[in-house]
Amino acid sequence: MSSHAKQAAHNLALVREKRPLVHNITNYVVMQYTANALLALGASPVMAHAVDEMEEMASLANALVLNIGTLSGPWIEGMLVAGGTASRRGIPVVLDPVGAGATRLRTDTAVRLLDECRVTVLRGNASEVLAVARGAGGTRGVDATHKVEDALEAARELARGRDLVTAITGPVDHVTDGSRLLRVRNGHPTMGSITGSGCTATAVIAAFCAVNARALEATANALAFFGIAGEHAARRSALPGTFGTALIDMLQAVTPDRVADEARIEE
Amino acid sequence: MSSHAKQAAHNLALVREKRPLVHNITNYVVMQYTANALLALGASPVMAHAVDEMEEMASLANALVLNIGTLSGPWIEGMLVAGGTASRRGIPVVLDPVGAGATRLRTDTAVRLLDECRVTVLRGNASEVLAVARGAGGTRGVDATHKVEDALEAARELARGRDLVTAITGPVDHVTDGSRLLRVRNGHPTMGSITGSGCTATAVIAAFCAVNARALEATANALAFFGIAGEHAARRSALPGTFGTALIDMLQAVTPDRVADEARIEE
Amino acid sequence: MSSHAKQAAHNLALVREKRPLVHNITNYVVMQYTANALLALGASPVMAHAVDEMEEMASLANALVLNIGTLSGPWIEGMLVAGGTASRRGIPVVLDPVGAGATRLRTDTAVRLLDECRVTVLRGNASEVLAVARGAGGTRGVDATHKVEDALEAARELARGRDLVTAITGPVDHVTDGSRLLRVRNGHPTMGSITGSGCTATAVIAAFCAVNARALEATANALAFFGIAGEHAARRSALPGTFGTALIDMLQAVTPDRVADEARIEE
Repeated sequence: MSSHAKQAAHNLALVREKRPLVHNITNYVVMQYTANALLALGASPVMAHAVDEMEEMASLANALVLNIGTLSGPWIEGMLVAGGTASRRGIPVVLDPVGAGATRLRTDTAVRLLDECRVTVLRGNASEVLAVARGAGGTRGVDATHKVEDALEAARELARGRDLVTAITGPVDHVTDGSRLLRVRNGHPTMGSITGSGCTATAVIAAFCAVNARALEATANALAFFGIAGEHAARRSALPGTFGTALIDMLQAVTPDRVADEARIEE
Repeated sequence: MSSHAKQAAHNLALVREKRPLVHNITNYVVMQYTANALLALGASPVMAHAVDEMEEMASLANALVLNIGTLSGPWIEGMLVAGGTASRRGIPVVLDPVGAGATRLRTDTAVRLLDECRVTVLRGNASEVLAVARGAGGTRGVDATHKVEDALEAARELARGRDLVTAITGPVDHVTDGSRLLRVRNGHPTMGSITGSGCTATAVIAAFCAVNARALEATANALAFFGIAGEHAARRSALPGTFGTALIDMLQAVTPDRVADEARIEE
Repeated sequence: MSSHAKQAAHNLALVREKRPLVHNITNYVVMQYTANALLALGASPVMAHAVDEMEEMASLANALVLNIGTLSGPWIEGMLVAGGTASRRGIPVVLDPVGAGATRLRTDTAVRLLDECRVTVLRGNASEVLAVARGAGGTRGVDATHKVEDALEAARELARGRDLVTAITGPVDHVTDGSRLLRVRNGHPTMGSITGSGCTATAVIAAFCAVNARALEATANALAFFGIAGEHAARRSALPGTFGTALIDMLQAVTPDRVADEARIEE
């Protein structure tokens, strides 16, 4: 049992004890799944996006998720107000730049949120992180292969330049604050067979950050826990419908002790 | 078998016979679950919110659900038009003030809907009902403990003052029209482990009210039926993913005979 | 094994080989289910609706779904831009006129999309197809019984007049390009017990059309495959919650060989 694994177990226990309120401005596709995932793991979800209530809602929350998966003008406004409020209050903001690189609107919005809010953690896949890094002017000359190695260098620059934690999720998750790098070797390929597993990872990170100010470790802890839940769900079903249901089950059933035994976080 | 339980069984049978069209203006998180729940129990769901079609859509429906869970300006407009149309046509309007008290927008919108529509049933948890009652000027001096007992007095005043039925759901559900009080002792704690179980209860109430003009009884009947379905689902799984799926199953599988045997409604 | 069944098997194999990107502008209720269905069957879903990114997003996609289930002004604009882009690029556009006939907004929007985009396939139930045909001026004097036979004549006229394929889904699916007619006898009544099974059929058609330019056959192939998945799911559960989960499972588990054996497409 590694020291990292023990910390991950402790972080999960703390989420379940404190039940942090996680405010999500997220996409329509994953809203229900994300809310159920947060409830299952022991946090309290709230979904709200209207500018008119953003300052109040963000003031009640212990963490904020900004997810640009089904973006439109009024939602961007809501994200900016909520992100600004959370930044001023010093509560963690986790940004999921879904589809950055696919359209200008997505890349620009992700960069604008980085510019105008104090983002604590940015989580994406390799190509999303690369797209954000390029859009943010943080990298040059990286070619378009979108390998984790290329994205990793961009992630490091982004983390250093913006003073945040970047997580690139994939077969192995890479989490960096610009100097340190944690690798998380939990998870299962079947997680890619359901929509929103990345978005759910983002929400889990927010819950872990809500109770742990060390964002680098909290992010790796969250990804290890989520990966372990995925591994257990995959033992129940290899088919995506029943797997998706089992994953919610496992987010509740996986205990801190199991995390201490099974988390594979390496520095 | 109590007389209340027999009436609840009859109310369910009537829903299945008439398949009322329930028009929902509800939040993004629960839309799919609510639609599946209504279909499973034997009603016909429709989800629509655009002002441009609200008068027509509300004219086709047998009941209307207004749920403020993920509110924004254009949706409020849609709710006001639909609520106005339903009020003029005399079809039941069931209001779910999700998160009232958390933000001004939510409390004010709930009160505005009460002011401008003829709401038949208001369903919320204790703190939501208290927040609406205070916002509506219906109570003074109730402290913020949000116990069911405090909320109950506010619910009674609200029901009397506004000529509606108030339902406070919780471990025991309380349903009042201001003078009479029905208590429903069905349900299971696991229902709180999935998102939108309250919202689903609201939609079930609308389906029962669509075929039963006695709103106090229809509300208690709906909550007893929904609670029984939850009890049966909890026997299938204690974990939230599989429980949520089982609850939809049970909304179809629970028969009027079972309701007659298992409903626990007390006056 | 019929020649049609063999073609359906081949079409499915091609979807799984090419993993086409299907861009969906669809309703809130079915977004998650549709995305999971597309992933399960082997396609790549993307959901996006903002006018600002419609041209770019529609340029990346291999097929476009326009579904008017929870319509509002800004979404109509997005549909028109995406539909126009897809039309110019010659990628298939599949229109699902959910609720056409119920409100003027829905009928008018469906007709406007037909007028302003090059729709490849229109899929609806009998009454939706009739409503669109009437709104589009394509039929006169058909009475309102909404039998498949009435709708079929309207579907043929619409297909001829608009140079598209019309699919009327029901106990037997009817697919016509105005001259030829394919009947698909797969499917199971339990499919009607979950919300969005029609919307999912539409998305499956888009995935099949993305890799098969013969839209008449691709549509019948998709409906046969989807029906077979439904038949297998119905063997797993007759109750709607578990059936809905099993249907996603079966969209992944049903193989081309099984489609070759079980597809019932007749000319």
